[in-house]
Amino acid sequence: MPITLNDCKQLDNNDPLRIMKDYFTLPEGIVYLDGNSLGAMPKSAASRIGTAVEKEWGNGLIRSWNDASWHNLPERLGDKIARLIGAASGEVVVTDGTSVNLFKVLSAALNITREDSPKRKIILSERSNFPTNLYIAEGLCKQFGLQLKLVEPDEIISSLTEDIAIVLITQVNYRLGILHNMEAVNVKAHAAGIITIWDLCHSAGAVPIDLNHAKADFAVGCTYKYLNGGPGSPSFVWVNKKHINRGWQPLSGWWGHKAQFEFTPNYIPAIGIKRYLCGTQPILSLIGLECGLDAMLASEKLGGIQALRKKSLALTDLFIQLIEQRCSGYGITIATPMEHSRRGSQISLARKDGAYAIVQALIARGVIGDFRAGDGNKYQDIMRFGFTPLYVGFEDVWNSVEHLYQVLINNEWSRPEFNKKNSVT
Amino acid sequence: MPITLNDCKQLDNNDPLRIMKDYFTLPEGIVYLDGNSLGAMPKSAASRIGTAVEKEWGNGLIRSWNDASWHNLPERLGDKIARLIGAASGEVVVTDGTSVNLFKVLSAALNITREDSPKRKIILSERSNFPTNLYIAEGLCKQFGLQLKLVEPDEIISSLTEDIAIVLITQVNYRLGILHNMEAVNVKAHAAGIITIWDLCHSAGAVPIDLNHAKADFAVGCTYKYLNGGPGSPSFVWVNKKHINRGWQPLSGWWGHKAQFEFTPNYIPAIGIKRYLCGTQPILSLIGLECGLDAMLASEKLGGIQALRKKSLALTDLFIQLIEQRCSGYGITIATPMEHSRRGSQISLARKDGAYAIVQALIARGVIGDFRAGDGNKYQDIMRFGFTPLYVGFEDVWNSVEHLYQVLINNEWSRPEFNKKNSVT
Repeated sequence: MPITLNDCKQLDNNDPLRIMKDYFTLPEGIVYLDGNSLGAMPKSAASRIGTAVEKEWGNGLIRSWNDASWHNLPERLGDKIARLIGAASGEVVVTDGTSVNLFKVLSAALNITREDSPKRKIILSERSNFPTNLYIAEGLCKQFGLQLKLVEPDEIISSLTEDIAIVLITQVNYRLGILHNMEAVNVKAHAAGIITIWDLCHSAGAVPIDLNHAKADFAVGCTYKYLNGGPGSPSFVWVNKKHINRGWQPLSGWWGHKAQFEFTPNYIPAIGIKRYLCGTQPILSLIGLECGLDAMLASEKLGGIQALRKKSLALTDLFIQLIEQRCSGYGITIATPMEHSRRGSQISLARKDGAYAIVQALIARGVIGDFRAGDGNKYQDIMRFGFTPLYVGFEDVWNSVEHLYQVLINNEWSRPEFNKKNSVT
Repeated sequence: MPITLNDCKQLDNNDPLRIMKDYFTLPEGIVYLDGNSLGAMPKSAASRIGTAVEKEWGNGLIRSWNDASWHNLPERLGDKIARLIGAASGEVVVTDGTSVNLFKVLSAALNITREDSPKRKIILSERSNFPTNLYIAEGLCKQFGLQLKLVEPDEIISSLTEDIAIVLITQVNYRLGILHNMEAVNVKAHAAGIITIWDLCHSAGAVPIDLNHAKADFAVGCTYKYLNGGPGSPSFVWVNKKHINRGWQPLSGWWGHKAQFEFTPNYIPAIGIKRYLCGTQPILSLIGLECGLDAMLASEKLGGIQALRKKSLALTDLFIQLIEQRCSGYGITIATPMEHSRRGSQISLARKDGAYAIVQALIARGVIGDFRAGDGNKYQDIMRFGFTPLYVGFEDVWNSVEHLYQVLINNEWSRPEFNKKNSVT
């Protein structure tokens, strides 16, 4: 029996997490399926950031480093993120951008490799990894005389051989939303003496993560996607305690110093995760992030990340079913894995042509997803739809597919205005 | 004849820049002399950041990367800063923190050195440089097999010998406010084949800078001091066009790629200053910075940085005169050079003991400066007072010295509450 709008409304009615939507402000008439790129605004953000600007900066001025606790934001926010990724308090800091943090952990891991297994000369990653990760790895390979080996996602496990120094994986692939089994990769990697670095950009806040239990070595991640930190909010770093005081990282700024305010001329790294700090952080953006984290953590009383994951899978399952029910025969294929164990919180739809224009036509209708170009070869053009269970409901899924159906049946996407490429995100 | 309060009021009345104070919000009853650490809040910041949060993030969501021009903020703000430092449009970007940017330019300069003069093995800097600069240089020296040579400010010129690869100088020293002659250093350095890197943290927005005319090689600088960008607002980078497309820097993230949104697996650096970008930037903090830059640039119609410099010297001259007039006999010495050509926009007062407590007692009275510890040896404990000519007036200078006099004559600073060290800034 086909799924109806009423079924979707019923699912919303039965969803204990539906009240989480009240923590966010979303524009009227919009179905927002791009929270995997920029998360929605927590309702608390406007007044909290307003206070930070007017009271803390404007009135408190320099005193706010102490009085408004600006100084411990990297660690305070790190502790909040720790609860979402299976890390302990004091193991995570929020600082700098993801690419910069990846540079730090990759440098540290390479320094460890140089000591422990200098004959290993390969960093392994996915060809379809987010490009900035590959660029950073490429740069360090050049510097350390290593080679970057790229394989497809399903070839990772079989490529974990004893010539590999480090494996660098994005837990949920940005293009197709493929979820890797962190524990399985770590077990296989460690058996072969390989250090694992996890990029959690598309998984933190979207899928349950247990870094310590899974025995990961290093992790970094983005905070403006599923953690709703606001545009460009700083990134986080976690390091396994077995490595934390080894593997010197070269962005050795004063915030990572053992005694930051003694202003001594020689660098002595702090004990613990603080050595991954470098310089002064953008406070207003950190405060925006705290609003996002607090909204996310408010879901703990409703089952937290486990409950969010369950809803996320129900949303993506429904989207897949409705796509098949309404949009078959239009050349659209589902590029994200069907198995729950291999799926993040997004669905990518592939189409030979028109994918860019279809996304633009959907945006014009108020359904916001995004487009990622293929390589004209192995990788197809992709329409990405992210389902953030904190604020996306089942009726939203219904509406998004109905709009897609209209775009397809009316050939709306062939209009010239939807075919002009001007997007930068 | 001693200077009187009325003289100071007269100076304010005759000051065409006094209207610039209206661009800023300062707390009632406060004399703010710490703009060299965190600049005051531009009046436009609250509503502009509020719009960025509620309209651009909350309502525009991902679309604001295009629609609200978030995407070009690093270059747009860079162009505004260019006008203040003698750079051309397209030569500056705002991105990341100062320590991270210093790492980039130092890496690039070292890569150039390795090609052009591989036998040079020394980076020269000041022992009293801001420590994070030394830490970053120390790290890169370790990596490149170089040595960091530290001298006193007045030894820099004579130390520019042909074994030096790079000289790294903060144009205005953070402790004593000593101003270096950029052109003289560059001329001498270039004659000896040395690359110059300038840290403009305490000079951008405070003293006239003409990077191109002075033929500097590289420069970085902070935006939350005299540029009033807000707590931790990102830093800027400038590179001389003769080096811009050489000297690969290792923080090779996607924002520095030639074709950022083509998501190709190999890194090809952008042509020009964009190659010094790495990853996504904290947008709310960048928007705060734009308010600061716009306020600063509004002074252009009143003579801009030349007029601000003239007022800054008048303010610091007055402070020195009043200190001598009112506070002599209390063990206070003026540690900043008397010559205008060697003075930034701050005055540092040294005292054998009690400097920390005196600063705390002044803060309790509403006069905000800060304290920097000595090394118990060559460097004395310092009380720093920054004079931002945009919003500090001559009567403020009078009041600050009167409060200092009261603190000294009444021994207020010996109270226990002023001697508990808890400051982190």
